[in-house]
Formats: sequence, C-alpha cells, structure tokens
Amino acid sequence: MRSIDDLDTPAILIDAARAEANIKRAQAHGDRHGLKLRPHIKTHKLPYWAKKQVAAGAVGITCQKIGEAEVMADAGLADIFLPYNILGRAKLERLKALHGRVTLSVTTDSRETLEGLADTFTDAGHPLPVLVECDTGMGRCGVQSPDEAVALAREIDKAKGLRFGGLMTYPAAGRAAQAEAWLVDAKQALAAAGLECQRISSGGTPDMWRSGEDSVVTEYRPGTYIYLDRYQVAKGVGGLDDCALTVLSTVVSHPTPARAILDAGSKALSSDTLGLADFGELLGIPGARVTGLSEEHGNVTLSGDAKLRIGERVRVVPDHCCVVTNLFDQVHLVDGDKVLETLPVAARGRMG
Amino acid sequence: MRSIDDLDTPAILIDAARAEANIKRAQAHGDRHGLKLRPHIKTHKLPYWAKKQVAAGAVGITCQKIGEAEVMADAGLADIFLPYNILGRAKLERLKALHGRVTLSVTTDSRETLEGLADTFTDAGHPLPVLVECDTGMGRCGVQSPDEAVALAREIDKAKGLRFGGLMTYPAAGRAAQAEAWLVDAKQALAAAGLECQRISSGGTPDMWRSGEDSVVTEYRPGTYIYLDRYQVAKGVGGLDDCALTVLSTVVSHPTPARAILDAGSKALSSDTLGLADFGELLGIPGARVTGLSEEHGNVTLSGDAKLRIGERVRVVPDHCCVVTNLFDQVHLVDGDKVLETLPVAARGRMG
Repeated sequence: MRSIDDLDTPAILIDAARAEANIKRAQAHGDRHGLKLRPHIKTHKLPYWAKKQVAAGAVGITCQKIGEAEVMADAGLADIFLPYNILGRAKLERLKALHGRVTLSVTTDSRETLEGLADTFTDAGHPLPVLVECDTGMGRCGVQSPDEAVALAREIDKAKGLRFGGLMTYPAAGRAAQAEAWLVDAKQALAAAGLECQRISSGGTPDMWRSGEDSVVTEYRPGTYIYLDRYQVAKGVGGLDDCALTVLSTVVSHPTPARAILDAGSKALSSDTLGLADFGELLGIPGARVTGLSEEHGNVTLSGDAKLRIGERVRVVPDHCCVVTNLFDQVHLVDGDKVLETLPVAARGRMG
Repeated sequence: MRSIDDLDTPAILIDAARAEANIKRAQAHGDRHGLKLRPHIKTHKLPYWAKKQVAAGAVGITCQKIGEAEVMADAGLADIFLPYNILGRAKLERLKALHGRVTLSVTTDSRETLEGLADTFTDAGHPLPVLVECDTGMGRCGVQSPDEAVALAREIDKAKGLRFGGLMTYPAAGRAAQAEAWLVDAKQALAAAGLECQRISSGGTPDMWRSGEDSVVTEYRPGTYIYLDRYQVAKGVGGLDDCALTVLSTVVSHPTPARAILDAGSKALSSDTLGLADFGELLGIPGARVTGLSEEHGNVTLSGDAKLRIGERVRVVPDHCCVVTNLFDQVHLVDGDKVLETLPVAARGRMG
C-alpha cells in the first residue's frame, strides 16, 4: 500500500474515517430532529462521497451547476436539487435532459427565470418542481419579501410543466432566527393563498447544528460539514482533529529563522479566508501559521518553539475547504499515513 | 464562425489582438533597453501564447512548476527557466529528464536544495545552470545578503554537474531601486570572489516599464503584461482597453434595483484581489462593480446610471488575471464578438 511519503506535493489528503464520522454525526442530528439532509456536493465534488451521504440517509444531493449534476447523475445519484436560477437556451435544454433521468428540482427568484423554465418544460412528461428562492438576510439572490414569494409561487403553480415545490434560502451566517421568522411568514402567506408548501430548504453548515424540531425548515443543505476547515472550527462546529481535508506540502525554503516557505500557495490553498486571519495552519505544529500567499508559495511565520526544516513535509488545514477542492484534479483518501485510494475530482471546474 | 453569444457562461474570453499588442509593446521595450524578456507562462498557461512570445523575440520562457515546463517542452518550447527550489527524489528525476531535452535553468536559495540538485545531476552529460535566488525585499524565498549569495554561488560552482548561472530575484512591488542596489552589491561581491555573473533575472510586470539600460538586470520575467487586469491598470501599466482577458458572465438575478447577481463567483473570478477594492468591474458599464463573491455568485452593486437586466451577458475585468486562468479548463480567443479559437488551458492546475 502506498504511503503519503510517496505522493508528490502539494496534494489533497482526505482522512476517510474523519469524513465518514462527520457524515454520520450530521445525519444523526438530522434524524433526531426530523430534518432531511440534502448535502451540497460543492465541498467534495466526488460521486464517492455523494453516494456515502445518500447511503447514510440523505434524501438526495444538492449541486450548484448543471455540469456537476450531470456528473452525479452519470454516477447513479438519483435525486438532485439545483438551487440556482437557470437561464439561457443551452442550459435549459441540458436541464430538461437531466429531468428525464433523475428526480430533479430547481429554484427561481424572478419572472425571467420562470418564463425560461415554463417555455422549456411545457411539454415535459412530468412537472418540474420549482422552489422560490428567498433572500432572508444574506443579500444575494432571492425574492425580497414573503408577498413576492407568494406572487412567484402563484406563477409557478399556473405554468404547465412546472409545479410549485416550496421555498429555498441560504441564510446569512449566524442569522438563522431571522431566516426562520421570514420563512414562517412566507409559509403562512402561501397557506392563505391556498398554496401548499411541502418543502422548505435551508443551508449552511454552522447553523445546521442549531436547526431543530421547532423549525419550518424541512430540509437542510450542509456542504462543508463533511470535511470541515479552519472556518468551521472557528464557528465551533468541530476541532482541528475533526478536519478531514489537509493539503500535504513541502518546505522549499527557510530564508530566516521565523520564515519558512511552502510549495502550496494560492493555487493550492486559495486566497479565500472567509474573513479569518491567516491562510491556514500546520497540523501538529502549533505556532506555524500560513501568513502570506502568492500563487506558488505559502509564507509560514514561525513563533514560539515551532520549527521546520527544508524538505520537510507538512499538512496544512485550510480556511475554506470547498474552494481548495476545486483547485486540484485529484484527492487521496488516507488512513493515517496510508493512501487508501486516489480519486479524480470528477465534478471539479464545472462552470456551466 | 461562432459568436460569443454561442458560448455558455461563465467563460474566459481573450481579445487576441490586444494580447498580441501587449506582447509587442513589452518586447519593444526590452529591445530598446537591451533587456532580454523571458515571459512567465503562469498568466496564460498556454503553449499558444508561449510560442508567440518567443516568436516576438523572447529568449525563452519561465515556468513555476515542473508540470508546466513538461507541457511547454512537449509543445516545442526549447528554453525554460524554473525559478523555484526543486526538492525531493521524484521532482528531481523529472527535472533531470527535462534537462535532457530542453535548455533548462533553475534556482536555489539553500544548501539543502543545492545538495539535491548536485546529487541528481552529477552524471548529467552537460551541466545544469543554477541561479541563486535573492531576497531583495519581497520577504519570500531567497538568500538574505550578497555575502550569502556569494557563498552559495561558490558551492554551485564546485558541484559536478552544476554551473553557477547568475542571480534571480522577484522584487517587492514598486521597490525596483532597492532590488537594483542589492543586485549591484551582489554582482560586485561575486566579481571580487572570482565568480562571473552573466545573468541577472528580475520580474514583475509593473516594474518592467521602469527597467532600463542603467540596470544590472539582464533578463526580465514579466507575466501579467500579456493580458493585464484591474491591478495592472491601477498600477498604470495600461488602461481597461488594454485588458485582453475578460470573464463572460450572465446576470442570473436582480433582487433589488442596486443589486444584480452574476453566474461568476469566486470559482470563476477568484477571491484574490491583490489588495484592490471590489473583485472586478463590468466592461462598458461604468458604475457596475463586483462587490461580493461567493463560490458561484458574483454580487454586482449598481450605482449612478448603471443598469442590468436578468439574462443579459456582461464581460468582467478581474483583479488578477493569472489566478482566473487557473480556474478554467479552456479559453476562447476572440475578435470583438467573433470566437476565433477555443484552446484548452494545457498547463492549468499543474501542482508538482
């Protein structure tokens, strides 16, 4: 069996047991609270983990791009939610083809998106469930009020080939209560309008742990929970020992006692810090932080007793694991220092 | 001939005429000042442009990774500089194979890197030129003083299979004068030690335009100059009309009058702002700035008369074009709205 010492650097290592434990822990939370899980595959982009998530009890998966959904459908995933406004002839035709082979649902937050869907699916054999995307405080996509949600739901309900599928939101981080109030209002307004709202889908890993039985949310789309990262640790979701994804890297230079340079720069760790200080930390070496990145170099600042030597291999816990996944063509599943399997990141880089 | 209207979004467009003009302009500057150009391919990662750069007069190319150099060698590029500390058996063997088929040169800033090179190349048919990397103020890799440079150059000179190839630096942005003084000192110290320094290689697009005949620098490694981006425009290298790379994107949502959402997020534009405010601006739409990114969404803030409509396609000038190139599997060369050619980004994602 190969060892991680045999791998070229930089490389993504996934501690398989940790990822499995993270899947189980989230599913148990969902089961305990009557919350359906529909994991977002953006974090791993691998059919391997998507299947494990479904096998553990997830009702289906969430993809952000049609290209990702196609990869997952090819791999046998059968229930896919695309919470995105799909626009344009080419994408709509691909969406229709996908609808023909998996249980598909999508979202809209505008009449323009709805019209494209309605035109495309008018002759679909079975109706496409369309959820209304709601801006409950994130300030990204979504209708701006429960009244707007009702108006759009009515239009969906009227369109031949479409079916009103419920509400979808991505709440602002840490403001799940605000999202909940918004969704409660919208659900009541829909009921008053005679529209049944069977499904209310929410997302975001940190807030999942605060979702419980007293919520109108029926379905949750956690992504990062499978791997975790420094951001999730900062949010209290787990400890560094729960982080499944690390970037194996080599110390290539050590110009001063306090500065060492890794062969993992922004092309491997990404510049996306999610607002954290530093770009990563070195597993098992307290006092070693990645304090600067250029494309192919990671600057490590050493403090206290932290020591590194040129040629040494280290494992970096990144700030945001999802964007790191997208930078690599493959990942290595590991058990300690043993490489269990090397998988191509099948849904990486899907743009459309 | 295809139109950009036929392309799915997001997609990279390269204005071919602009890129060609940018190559010519830089080469003319180099020729005028007796400065050899050795363009860094990290910006485009395409044999297509590397060949054009050499045809225009570049002495060779610069790659940062062996994997990039292998792609370029396969495409027929004959003179490649790898200004990186190459460590580890696997990489050193690949380096040696590369040395057997192209004119190769590398760098070191430590005895550890030097030992690996010396062990590997001791039986090489012809010696490998090794330059000493100098930290002239950037605070990344590099020996810390001219004296250290001389000491390392002596070790290279003694090693069988290696040849002292000169000095290499990547100066801190805007501090070319400081780098120049450092290099002058080092060159004199080398001469005093009886070591000839034929080649002094520097880099960084903005400062290239300030490099002239009165410099000890003999060779320059500009990267971004071929495409330009918002950072280069901010540094005065050119105007928005000189930027060759744009990201074609679709407006997928318009939740409020001042907020529109693009299908280009950090997975298409990257979170790397190089310190600029905002993540990009929309070509031809003053007052439309990308003020927020999540992975698959770009938040556009509209001010003044700026207007967008859902479904509209826009072209975004990113802050840092090099990192955008690395996110896409292909680019489209365009002439206005005409697509001239679609090229795979052959050297994208090369980690080792």
